[in-house]
Amino acid sequence: MADQAKAAVEFAQKNGERFVEELKALLRIPSISTLPEHAGDVRRAAEFVAAELKRIGMEHVRLIETATAERPGGHPLVYADWLNGAPAADGKPAPTVLCYGHYDVQPPDPLDEWKSPPFEPAEREGNLYARGAVDDKGQMWMHVKALEALMETGGGKLPVNVRVIVEGEEEVGGEGIADFVREHGDQLRADVALVSDTEMFAADLPTLCVGLRGMIYTEIEARGARTDLHSGMYGGAAPNPFVALAQVIAKLKDADGKILIPGFYDKVQKPSDAELTAWKALPFDEEHYRETEVGSIALTGEPGYSVLERTWARPTLDVHGMPGGFTGAGAKTVIPARAVAKVSMRLVPDMTPAESFAQYRAYVESICPKGIVLEVRLIHSGDAIVVSTDNRYIQAATGAMHEVFGKETVFVRGGGSIPIVGDFERELKIPTVMMGFGLPDDNLHAPNEKFHLANFHRGIESIVRFFVRLGG
Amino acid sequence: MADQAKAAVEFAQKNGERFVEELKALLRIPSISTLPEHAGDVRRAAEFVAAELKRIGMEHVRLIETATAERPGGHPLVYADWLNGAPAADGKPAPTVLCYGHYDVQPPDPLDEWKSPPFEPAEREGNLYARGAVDDKGQMWMHVKALEALMETGGGKLPVNVRVIVEGEEEVGGEGIADFVREHGDQLRADVALVSDTEMFAADLPTLCVGLRGMIYTEIEARGARTDLHSGMYGGAAPNPFVALAQVIAKLKDADGKILIPGFYDKVQKPSDAELTAWKALPFDEEHYRETEVGSIALTGEPGYSVLERTWARPTLDVHGMPGGFTGAGAKTVIPARAVAKVSMRLVPDMTPAESFAQYRAYVESICPKGIVLEVRLIHSGDAIVVSTDNRYIQAATGAMHEVFGKETVFVRGGGSIPIVGDFERELKIPTVMMGFGLPDDNLHAPNEKFHLANFHRGIESIVRFFVRLGG
Repeated sequence: MADQAKAAVEFAQKNGERFVEELKALLRIPSISTLPEHAGDVRRAAEFVAAELKRIGMEHVRLIETATAERPGGHPLVYADWLNGAPAADGKPAPTVLCYGHYDVQPPDPLDEWKSPPFEPAEREGNLYARGAVDDKGQMWMHVKALEALMETGGGKLPVNVRVIVEGEEEVGGEGIADFVREHGDQLRADVALVSDTEMFAADLPTLCVGLRGMIYTEIEARGARTDLHSGMYGGAAPNPFVALAQVIAKLKDADGKILIPGFYDKVQKPSDAELTAWKALPFDEEHYRETEVGSIALTGEPGYSVLERTWARPTLDVHGMPGGFTGAGAKTVIPARAVAKVSMRLVPDMTPAESFAQYRAYVESICPKGIVLEVRLIHSGDAIVVSTDNRYIQAATGAMHEVFGKETVFVRGGGSIPIVGDFERELKIPTVMMGFGLPDDNLHAPNEKFHLANFHRGIESIVRFFVRLGG
Repeated sequence: MADQAKAAVEFAQKNGERFVEELKALLRIPSISTLPEHAGDVRRAAEFVAAELKRIGMEHVRLIETATAERPGGHPLVYADWLNGAPAADGKPAPTVLCYGHYDVQPPDPLDEWKSPPFEPAEREGNLYARGAVDDKGQMWMHVKALEALMETGGGKLPVNVRVIVEGEEEVGGEGIADFVREHGDQLRADVALVSDTEMFAADLPTLCVGLRGMIYTEIEARGARTDLHSGMYGGAAPNPFVALAQVIAKLKDADGKILIPGFYDKVQKPSDAELTAWKALPFDEEHYRETEVGSIALTGEPGYSVLERTWARPTLDVHGMPGGFTGAGAKTVIPARAVAKVSMRLVPDMTPAESFAQYRAYVESICPKGIVLEVRLIHSGDAIVVSTDNRYIQAATGAMHEVFGKETVFVRGGGSIPIVGDFERELKIPTVMMGFGLPDDNLHAPNEKFHLANFHRGIESIVRFFVRLGG
């Protein structure tokens, strides 16, 4: 077992530069799933991943279409497997690992804040800068490259059975894969899922994520006058959709960050005392975090909760953009007929998207300003989850990372949402190992997204060792 | 005198179709003054107007550059004059009329709500649809065509002295012409200004505008984190600029529309009892106005004031757009580093832009939410004005319109701002006649802007008769 890992790790080290060059080629494809004009690029990225899975020796490689009459813009899934794993000495079949990742990315705007163009990968100071570098093309590529290293050095064999599923809609809610898991779960039968779409708590600190917030992403559309009106002629009589949205938003959350939607906190489950104690022991300096990660003059959020509690275990509400009206330079004196607020809420166990959205919509409708018609739309949603830590998969992961980092693994939660983890748990009845190698300052969803290249290589090594341990 | 008017009016009627075709050519030039990429179009429109003034026999036609080192984007003024008017029988020199208009237009967005493209003039049901049709290219063209008719039928002579000044920055605050009036007022010496940039109170109801609101157009920029952040990872700790702006806006105006800025109403002058009585006598049906002009489910604004008072004689506050963050279709889970609110206030006598802006800025800064840095910027401003109605110019205007419409003129105020009228009063010490021929449903600053063509022709006739009366 040690030999198998050693050979694969050496192969990965020797081929590390090539792995990075391949990743760059994938990063050059602007596979922005939320923008319909990039649908062709999204497909190109899927084909790129599929071709590489085939090249390294995976079997049954195919694209699974997710577009339907109702969802004509659905992006394809990439599937591959290798299910020829030798049984263990005791005759038990080799375990099957379901490797999950996504090849789609967030939009890159605001473009002018990127130091190098988002789709022209650039190396600077040991980092690879590009949209998708770490979220998630780079981390997904670690899986592919770990498999390649094991295949190449194992005579075309893997130490475990592996299925790979890579989606192209993670950044837009992942409906396509959710439907597939629900309807064709048998095609993804496995013992454990491996997801690398999270981060390390600090540089050099091996980390497993054991909880994620859920979310509901919504739009509130406010309509006032039938058409845009001149604010000189109609100001004082015509309702203003932006003022109305501001009034609504100001009533959604108080000045301290407490959400004012009736019933919203009712189901919130407090983390266990053991978890809270472990979080307090993590190397976290709030002032350093404010200064270097956030960069604002002060942090915000509910009083009485630590930053980690606020971002991991408390629901939050944010506004992402307010399209409508005049947004150019200079002045246009218009009372726009309509305006939209993009509002999302992060949910924690045991809140459910359906109930939270119903509470939110009812409340927004109850505070609708005079003269305005509001429409509240759900764009997408995902469940909050917490995963169990007492199983052999988690033990294999912590053992593998100990070999690479020489340190004990910390268990953290993530503030973001990876809805598929809940789907795997619910539909496939399998646990997920969330072993991620991003860093807190990797600028996910922001300009200058990067992947620390040392972590890319340590990630590949950790995954190689994880597979070998599971097969051993 | 009657003969002179008769011949010119007949000429205008005979050439009416040509006049409209010429106007269409001007409307095809997208002279959007607020968008730097249209600077060339703005200049083209200036040259178009200058060429026509020259062709009809006006003298000293020239473009006056307004761009300076501080304002490199300044658009040119078009100047022309004809100062050879014969003295009256009593030896008094002919009066000089300063004709003012503007050749720049508002941006056309939202484009998809136009029934025909904004810069491809289209006639439908007696209306000419295009951006600028009535505001102000069409109304400015009435001046030019009235001058042409008088020149052509008067043997190359006009009944009065005329100066023409046409600006290209009315929609962006008119700084260029304001500077020129202040610094070179002697080049615009006149007895009265004629401005056709207002509307009739109702179809067939000759109207003079005798008061206008002033304005301050501002931006509030809210900055939170140093860069855009992922709302999953940082939601609950990072300040959200949109939420902050919503909180600020919600404190600027209460649910009834009362502005909450301390001291804002202190200088507001109530209209005279006579004016209020006259307004009550105007043919105004609030429900019809709500239904056909505004088209909202209810009107808004300060309780205790009529719609005409609220839009003509009360200050108001509107939000025009909130650029920043993610405004595309779908979802992007970003906490944007910054967001902007475009906020304007309309002012009434005796408020001043400087004092009102100072009150506003101080108040906004005093309510700045936690973790946010606010910057409040003044984009442009203009004084509120009321003009005197007891002078021979107003009498000539009402007399001329009585000949055309067969009705008494009503005196109204306008809710919009034409800052140049205050500049003429203050710097040139002359009154202004605001004789406009737009209609309330002409969609100024909105999609499907139009000019009712019958009013274009009646406007030319009214202006012809106005000039003849002043010269007689």
